[in-house]
Amino acid sequence: MLNYARYKKNPVISLSERQWPDNQIEKAPVWCSVDLRDGNQALIEPMVVEEKIEFFQMLVKLGFKEIEVGFPSASQIEYDFLRQLVERNLIPDDVIVQVLVQCREHLIERTFEALNGVKKAIVHIYNSTSALQRDVVFGKSKEEIKEIAIEGTKLVKQKMKDFEGKIILEYSPESFTGTEVDYALDVCEAVLDEWGATKEEPVIINLPATVEMNTPNVYADQIEWFHRHLKNREAVILSVHPHNDRGCAVAAAELSLLAGADRIEGTLFGNGERTGNVDILTIAYNLFSQGVNPNLNLENINEIIEVYERCCKIPVHIRHPYAGKLVFTAFSGSHQDAINKGIKAMKERNQSYWEVPYLPIDPADVGRKYEPIVRINSQSGKGGVAFIMDSCFGFKLPKGMQKEFAKIIQEISEKQGEVAPEQIMEEFKKEYLEAKEPFHFCQCKIEEKMDENNRESTHITILYKENGIEKTLEGIGNGPIDAAQKGISNIISRKLKVLDYNEHALQSGSNAQAVTYIHLLDEENGNAIYGAGISSNITRSSLRALFSAINRLNK
Amino acid sequence: MLNYARYKKNPVISLSERQWPDNQIEKAPVWCSVDLRDGNQALIEPMVVEEKIEFFQMLVKLGFKEIEVGFPSASQIEYDFLRQLVERNLIPDDVIVQVLVQCREHLIERTFEALNGVKKAIVHIYNSTSALQRDVVFGKSKEEIKEIAIEGTKLVKQKMKDFEGKIILEYSPESFTGTEVDYALDVCEAVLDEWGATKEEPVIINLPATVEMNTPNVYADQIEWFHRHLKNREAVILSVHPHNDRGCAVAAAELSLLAGADRIEGTLFGNGERTGNVDILTIAYNLFSQGVNPNLNLENINEIIEVYERCCKIPVHIRHPYAGKLVFTAFSGSHQDAINKGIKAMKERNQSYWEVPYLPIDPADVGRKYEPIVRINSQSGKGGVAFIMDSCFGFKLPKGMQKEFAKIIQEISEKQGEVAPEQIMEEFKKEYLEAKEPFHFCQCKIEEKMDENNRESTHITILYKENGIEKTLEGIGNGPIDAAQKGISNIISRKLKVLDYNEHALQSGSNAQAVTYIHLLDEENGNAIYGAGISSNITRSSLRALFSAINRLNK
Repeated sequence: MLNYARYKKNPVISLSERQWPDNQIEKAPVWCSVDLRDGNQALIEPMVVEEKIEFFQMLVKLGFKEIEVGFPSASQIEYDFLRQLVERNLIPDDVIVQVLVQCREHLIERTFEALNGVKKAIVHIYNSTSALQRDVVFGKSKEEIKEIAIEGTKLVKQKMKDFEGKIILEYSPESFTGTEVDYALDVCEAVLDEWGATKEEPVIINLPATVEMNTPNVYADQIEWFHRHLKNREAVILSVHPHNDRGCAVAAAELSLLAGADRIEGTLFGNGERTGNVDILTIAYNLFSQGVNPNLNLENINEIIEVYERCCKIPVHIRHPYAGKLVFTAFSGSHQDAINKGIKAMKERNQSYWEVPYLPIDPADVGRKYEPIVRINSQSGKGGVAFIMDSCFGFKLPKGMQKEFAKIIQEISEKQGEVAPEQIMEEFKKEYLEAKEPFHFCQCKIEEKMDENNRESTHITILYKENGIEKTLEGIGNGPIDAAQKGISNIISRKLKVLDYNEHALQSGSNAQAVTYIHLLDEENGNAIYGAGISSNITRSSLRALFSAINRLNK
Repeated sequence: MLNYARYKKNPVISLSERQWPDNQIEKAPVWCSVDLRDGNQALIEPMVVEEKIEFFQMLVKLGFKEIEVGFPSASQIEYDFLRQLVERNLIPDDVIVQVLVQCREHLIERTFEALNGVKKAIVHIYNSTSALQRDVVFGKSKEEIKEIAIEGTKLVKQKMKDFEGKIILEYSPESFTGTEVDYALDVCEAVLDEWGATKEEPVIINLPATVEMNTPNVYADQIEWFHRHLKNREAVILSVHPHNDRGCAVAAAELSLLAGADRIEGTLFGNGERTGNVDILTIAYNLFSQGVNPNLNLENINEIIEVYERCCKIPVHIRHPYAGKLVFTAFSGSHQDAINKGIKAMKERNQSYWEVPYLPIDPADVGRKYEPIVRINSQSGKGGVAFIMDSCFGFKLPKGMQKEFAKIIQEISEKQGEVAPEQIMEEFKKEYLEAKEPFHFCQCKIEEKMDENNRESTHITILYKENGIEKTLEGIGNGPIDAAQKGISNIISRKLKVLDYNEHALQSGSNAQAVTYIHLLDEENGNAIYGAGISSNITRSSLRALFSAINRLNK
């Protein structure tokens, strides 16, 4: 049994007159990508400089305006990477690079060396403030830990005097979720005072869930508490940096936006230490799906996946929100049916906004396709099969035929598992279009006649093969199908009745192929079955459909 | 740019005097696994009957007491599977199987056929109630949709009369998150009334987030609203069934527990349609990590992963909470250092509860190991390298040596990426233990002497090779190291000083190997460097360490 008694509840805070659950997210936060630092450091194979440059350029293209490029004082590669960005002039004017550094003089000095030539940078200092880390890692008092933060702030202030570009200070009380909020506030206020933060020159105060320690509402409470207790809220850009230990990083980030956060640090697809950072893409697509402009250019998710998987050597999971291979796939028949109806209703109503059951967004809006939406397995039902026949191949099967054909596909899928669209089409051909035994329609001659009483009738002469032997049959009726059916009834000595007849073009244009579906009843035994035929000539397609049905009745 | 204007905000509800954000989760919910239905239907290759049986048996072993086994009226395989469970007597007395079925007579009848012989079953009926589905899928009014639910309830009540086992009714207003809460309540109350639910014979009312449509606090609001508005709350087991479209299913489930839910339907690792169902394992481990008994036997996550990946043919992502390959790995040097210190402090304090920075749980508690915690890459720093040397190989390097050696490893990792523990040990050997050129220690003779003034001194004669040529040196000092160092100083004409000296056994036992570390200063140029040597004899290990240091000084 799990030894749960070894663990204690992490404390929550008490927050009176809580506001955030009544709020909604009305606009996108400031995004900061930490892919190249927090994300990259947690890769089995960290990116080499050229991969970092490619990744950085993608982030720029996606619209990130704040990009953490590394910890240049701690790693030669990250130092070299930043120098490359500067020397190859790869940082656009509207993009701010961010560098992480501990509150230590020689590291801050080296960081400024690395930044030389950058026009605008965020210098991100941090120290760990949690009760646990103060105790077991640093063995320092609250005052001593606060002093580290103040000292770091002083050092940045001092070193930036000789720096030509603009510096924005960011301070993180690392392990914030394990820190008493009032103490974290105390440390942050000390940093703000030391820096002299103002509305015009605000400081980024970043409150990391270095380890996710509680349900996400508790993080939101902490953020709201902070938001409400900051002495000069205007002088602060309130930033969050959630990790995903409890699988709730996206929720924690979203609730923190409700609670007053302005800015989110995260990574693409949630790469990062352990369970990873919060996934910025999911939050951005969540905003998008609710009509809020995410301020990122995410219209081609496949391109993002491609660069990400190549540079990080981590696959995107097939069920990853918005990005996974299967997330726009509906396996359930009832889901497929509802999706079909939803799409149809949208078209019929000429509806401008997207609203389709089981598809929170239009896959096409993120560069995905409709085709993979439906995969047919043993639980798909007629809706799925009908959807494939229509969306992939243009065959709009009549309702009764959907059921008949779906049953055939279901038997196959119960044996083999999933059935690909191509195989479904193959089965359709085999079962209907190529049902040419024993009776194979070859040619026909049709004469429209009028008898002495001015009654019109159609006389048909059909050349066909029965088990390969050419034969002829004749029939008279009120149209070609009727005449043909009567002629055939005589030959096979059965009473047949056409229950239903449908026809539609398969493509547009005057020489397009048409398909005819015929529902045929054998009146003697009550069996009813469908046939289908195609031709550029609708008489031919009808007769082929009739022969298809007769051959299927005979099986 | 993303076409966000195509989407509208999903409505939220207004909830006065909201309670849930002040609650904490005090106990585990009733768990219901829907792996074999909702999960299985969304697999590219659905499980075959034998795989389902293996999976079912694992679920039983993990402690699930409610297991949805399928939709037997819709799929022959699911029908056969349930029959196998019954006929092979595989359902323990304390496990309730659950079957899903639409509110239709022939399907309910077939479902009871499939259940024949089961002692206790949950019959789970559902119909879709959302505004969108009523409109575009069913074209039915609210009253007509409600009637479907009532009719289904009647049918189950009627069919169960001839059934020998016990039946519990479950009703789901499918697409609940898109349904007006008051209407959903109205439908559920009608079902409860029709069934005659009581405290003694409660009905499971399951409120699915068929599509996750909003931030998870909104789902919690819906659940709390429902919880507070049910006429006879005691007659209801309030169940949730979250999906993960917005990446917040775990959060939604947890917040719904705060809001009054009793029961969670979900799957292992969140398998299921599109982005999947909620991941029961993550919620359970979250409870566990806060000292709450999850009532599931999850102490060996590797076994669960093995069966899951084999049966579902879906990999568990490397960053999946608690289960991913990398979630107990720390890449960052400062994290590794803090973990070491945290573990050390726990040991020293003989602390009963777990509290270690960056490791929310002890990996060993879920059947994972410590070894993979630290992987060394270019950003690991000295803490990581020291941890590997200690935990994998038993070498407790002195602090200064940690730094010296880490620098060597960092240079390697900057070239090649990650460095495996074995390679780290190889480098340690090459760099220190096998630093035998130009001076190779062979043997020594030590004489303790006392001069006429009773002053003690150590006279050492060392046989060594210099570039392969055997030589002898002599030295006098106050101990063997001192004597040897003085002797060598003369030969190489340098002034040396031993700054520090450490020694520890590498294994326990009387003939165990010991390792000696010597920190040696070249007083002329101020260079200081470490050497190390091992032997079962500490004089030998010391002399080897000294030679190692001298050779390294000479490099």
